Amino acid sequence: MALKYYHAEPAANSLKSMIPLLEKRLPFESVYVDLHKFEQHADWFVAINPEGQVPVLDHDGNIITHTTVINEYLEDVFPEIPLRPRDPLGAARMRYWNKFVDEQVMNYTSMHGWHRMVGVIARNIESGEFDKLMERIPLPDQRRKWRTARSGFSETDLAYATDKVVYAIDKVETQLGKTPWLAGPDYTLADINFYSMCGMMVERMFPELQVASRCPRMVAWREKMNARPAVAKALAGENRTNPALRTFTGEAR
Amino acid sequence: MALKYYHAEPAANSLKSMIPLLEKRLPFESVYVDLHKFEQHADWFVAINPEGQVPVLDHDGNIITHTTVINEYLEDVFPEIPLRPRDPLGAARMRYWNKFVDEQVMNYTSMHGWHRMVGVIARNIESGEFDKLMERIPLPDQRRKWRTARSGFSETDLAYATDKVVYAIDKVETQLGKTPWLAGPDYTLADINFYSMCGMMVERMFPELQVASRCPRMVAWREKMNARPAVAKALAGENRTNPALRTFTGEAR
Repeated sequence: MALKYYHAEPAANSLKSMIPLLEKRLPFESVYVDLHKFEQHADWFVAINPEGQVPVLDHDGNIITHTTVINEYLEDVFPEIPLRPRDPLGAARMRYWNKFVDEQVMNYTSMHGWHRMVGVIARNIESGEFDKLMERIPLPDQRRKWRTARSGFSETDLAYATDKVVYAIDKVETQLGKTPWLAGPDYTLADINFYSMCGMMVERMFPELQVASRCPRMVAWREKMNARPAVAKALAGENRTNPALRTFTGEAR
Repeated sequence: MALKYYHAEPAANSLKSMIPLLEKRLPFESVYVDLHKFEQHADWFVAINPEGQVPVLDHDGNIITHTTVINEYLEDVFPEIPLRPRDPLGAARMRYWNKFVDEQVMNYTSMHGWHRMVGVIARNIESGEFDKLMERIPLPDQRRKWRTARSGFSETDLAYATDKVVYAIDKVETQLGKTPWLAGPDYTLADINFYSMCGMMVERMFPELQVASRCPRMVAWREKMNARPAVAKALAGENRTNPALRTFTGEAR
């Protein structure tokens, strides 16, 4: 049995499937893909994932992409240490939250991250070079996102994205008043998803939201997440982003 | 064991979880929710689903919402007639396609459907009455969508949505050159998802795309879907939409 995990910095998508691998104590080969060098669009990587996106799980030569899909796959194949409730209703609650994060949260924290970090990177690339890089991106929407990051996302779009983030943290705060974890009594993939895509960085990224006073239960939940050995180990992974550019995780502004 | 399914017309989301119920030959009580009377925002319905959206599955009093979540739940509880591959890799392929349809397809056929049908409905409501109806909608994004449908989606947004539909049907066409069904050798929830959200109506809704010549394999696949007794039975369900307004399914233009 051989697991290989292709990933970038320990944040967002790359973090989201790294945590389950570590929680489940699965031995795996870590393959760092350097987004700063656009390795995700290089021929060798696109041969592995034609969509040109990290992360990717290679299990005995089978390629799985998209973190929510990868994480369910890990539950199906390695159920010993479960991160998905074994009762169908619990699994449905977990999937409800995964869907919410995937569709209503991820793109919106991401937009601010791209605006702040990828925008700077994109603007530092000379035009001719930039166009050549764009040609190598397989997904049309991803090309659009790079071009928009370069010119800057509109104030309207950024304000809408902030509204979505506020809606999400309020919803999570309400839920954590009812259950200790997002999907019920147990820590699940839903917690890992929201943490990786929003919860870990939202306070740093949006100081104007006064997250600590607005969402005290979420902050306590985040600290519980931070304290998990698997999460701490994942966060300690390689990070080649210039510290001055770590705006995506709110470490820099 | 009691299953109750709250749904509207047999198209899109309401169709998507109806088909699995019928494929699995599960006895269920059908509860029609009349969207033309805004019953999905009525107190009795919001008490069942606080998001005010159809469909909803009630299984022995447990409420499950969101069709992709409902359909996985049905697999978990009633695995006898499977619509999800039993091998983890097959399940991952199915979930890859479900995610693609949920995130990259559904909203875009939907935008054209709303533009054509819901826009007409919304514009026929007097302003004061319309504002009152909007106040009853629980999800902020759903309120936005209604307001946009009333004023009309922008040409830019509609053109982008068409691009997404084209991308999707070309992707499906390519896949059907490799495997008989979307996720591999077997008919799965992925087929039901794409069919309900795009495949069944795309040719009628977008005649300018010349779907029959562009995507012959997809059209053959759609006919295979239409011929399934469960699909035919679901499509024959109650439809209270004025035939002249059935633009969402392309039956009217």
